[in-house]
Amino acid sequence: MTTDRMIGTAELEDIAIGGAILGTGGGGDPYIGKLMAQQAIRQHGPVRLIDVDSLGNDALVVPVCMMGAPTVMTEKLPQGDELVIAFRKLEALLGRRIDAVLCGEAGGINSTTPFVVAAAADRPLVDGDGMGRAYPELQMVTFTLHGVSATPMVLCDDKGNSIVLDTISNAWTERLARAATVEMGGSALLAFYPMDGATAKRAVVRGTLGLCARLGSRLRQARATHGDPVAEIADILDADVIFHGRVRDVERRTVGGFARGTADFEGVEEWADHRFRLQFQNEFLIAYRDGEPLVTTPDLITLLDAESGTPVTADSLRYGLRLKALACASTPLWRTPAGLELIGPRYFGYDLDYRPFRAGSQP
Amino acid sequence: MTTDRMIGTAELEDIAIGGAILGTGGGGDPYIGKLMAQQAIRQHGPVRLIDVDSLGNDALVVPVCMMGAPTVMTEKLPQGDELVIAFRKLEALLGRRIDAVLCGEAGGINSTTPFVVAAAADRPLVDGDGMGRAYPELQMVTFTLHGVSATPMVLCDDKGNSIVLDTISNAWTERLARAATVEMGGSALLAFYPMDGATAKRAVVRGTLGLCARLGSRLRQARATHGDPVAEIADILDADVIFHGRVRDVERRTVGGFARGTADFEGVEEWADHRFRLQFQNEFLIAYRDGEPLVTTPDLITLLDAESGTPVTADSLRYGLRLKALACASTPLWRTPAGLELIGPRYFGYDLDYRPFRAGSQP
Repeated sequence: MTTDRMIGTAELEDIAIGGAILGTGGGGDPYIGKLMAQQAIRQHGPVRLIDVDSLGNDALVVPVCMMGAPTVMTEKLPQGDELVIAFRKLEALLGRRIDAVLCGEAGGINSTTPFVVAAAADRPLVDGDGMGRAYPELQMVTFTLHGVSATPMVLCDDKGNSIVLDTISNAWTERLARAATVEMGGSALLAFYPMDGATAKRAVVRGTLGLCARLGSRLRQARATHGDPVAEIADILDADVIFHGRVRDVERRTVGGFARGTADFEGVEEWADHRFRLQFQNEFLIAYRDGEPLVTTPDLITLLDAESGTPVTADSLRYGLRLKALACASTPLWRTPAGLELIGPRYFGYDLDYRPFRAGSQP
Repeated sequence: MTTDRMIGTAELEDIAIGGAILGTGGGGDPYIGKLMAQQAIRQHGPVRLIDVDSLGNDALVVPVCMMGAPTVMTEKLPQGDELVIAFRKLEALLGRRIDAVLCGEAGGINSTTPFVVAAAADRPLVDGDGMGRAYPELQMVTFTLHGVSATPMVLCDDKGNSIVLDTISNAWTERLARAATVEMGGSALLAFYPMDGATAKRAVVRGTLGLCARLGSRLRQARATHGDPVAEIADILDADVIFHGRVRDVERRTVGGFARGTADFEGVEEWADHRFRLQFQNEFLIAYRDGEPLVTTPDLITLLDAESGTPVTADSLRYGLRLKALACASTPLWRTPAGLELIGPRYFGYDLDYRPFRAGSQP
């Protein structure tokens, strides 16, 4: 059990960087979430980050997040207020005080959005999340594997509309919330998956916000000391550098609210004469090297600028960028038959089985 | 003020026929609604139809209806139970007993669906509706003209999913409910526009369920006595026969949940050598005769089988059918600038102004 720590605006800089790394190419731009969270912290004070084990078994815990396609989000700055409104509406609906906020998705923008609610509503934030990375659909959380219903869920937009969903399955929650989000202009703010402390202790991917902070902090230090940022990140994640090359071609399209596509790379230096391909649906899901599938979802694939270590999203891939690809094993919670049914390659429509990336640990 | 009357399964036969006539080509198949309502009445007893003036000013009144494209509805028989669930969920949300059920749309399937709730929940049903006909969108009700919010609204599907909407405008309610309905498979059951008795007295198009019953009853009698069914219907509606001809060509497509299209006719007998065209979006909205717009929404256009007087929907238009077209003036509530902004030709994308069909009254 770790000691509680207070998160202020400075720590959020690191967490946002770490969130972009765990975003595995998607998850939305953490920069926007960071600005929202920093503003909330300046206004309401720092956020207490707690270990999931410090929750009472009957505590009420609620994840919050933003839903939508990153390509849309960058054009439409969300207001943090609506996330707080969603949280408070769900609290009113449940008829009791929510004891702690939870992060649904530690990768991308949602690594930082929960800090908005934690600060504004003065609740502790659990150090952990429901993915250990980023994923594009609402039911793709370890909470689903532990039988937690996504509903009752409150969904708000930036115009003042709100929706309460009560569904027969988390897949239906995704379908109905996705349709509403598209209609609302491409992004919406959610409070969902209400659960008790006992369930949270089983279902949460632990320590992922602390991991984000360490990733961001080490990256910052490596730059300051002229070290090798990519190597530092690989060390923390227990990841391998699986490619080093330049972006040659990117094909992307927005389908049903998702940014889908393929990126091709040509190798440089030690990887000259090798080819590399990524397939993404918001997040990088499959990595091929020289035509062979090398890394498959749920294992993590992340792209970093070869020099600075800055994480690069699928959105921002441009011809000629020189990048290094890292890969590491996902949380063991996903590497189960039930987990793979929810987020394995076949769920995303790829005709291949999961190939566990080398034995390794990922917090 | 009229006397209350009890509606049983036999009266529903007439109301469903009248509902199809006021359906102006759309509104969904009243046959399905009739079956649902008759089953509910057999199980729970007849429904008391009351005059809106018998409501106390602070009574709570709630319209219920089915939402969706008629072409989808005929393939997927809705369960009346979900309408009762939507009603009871809204009642629980409002925190007080609903005193009376209201009909949102007297044309089409929703002329009969409110009887399901009135019977099952043992509440009186107000004789009247929010359209005096059928229209394709949720905000197209006289309630909107009187400042009533469509939300809080409960929307249920036949699978067990439910949604509560709380929106900034009735147009937003339509957008979000439409997206949900499409995702739910094409139809959904709603309870919405909660209002007090004082508002209902101002906003309701009065007596339209009684009108439906008279239309169905007179049609039945005309057939039994070998009279002229079309003339009888025209008499009750104070309508003109504006065309008599055969269907020559129908073009239809389902767009965003609506059945849109155009039907062309060639005249017979007194209308030989004349042409007739209808444009519809679920309902018949514009009638052209010999290339000139003759009747425009909100005035009513309805098609009847030339011999039997059976109303014919846009869905069931087939090459060669011999039909008569009737037209009559809409309720005066719609013939205002605010009304025309909501349901005039330009709202539906037609580049023409409303042309009031000859002075006349429609109950």
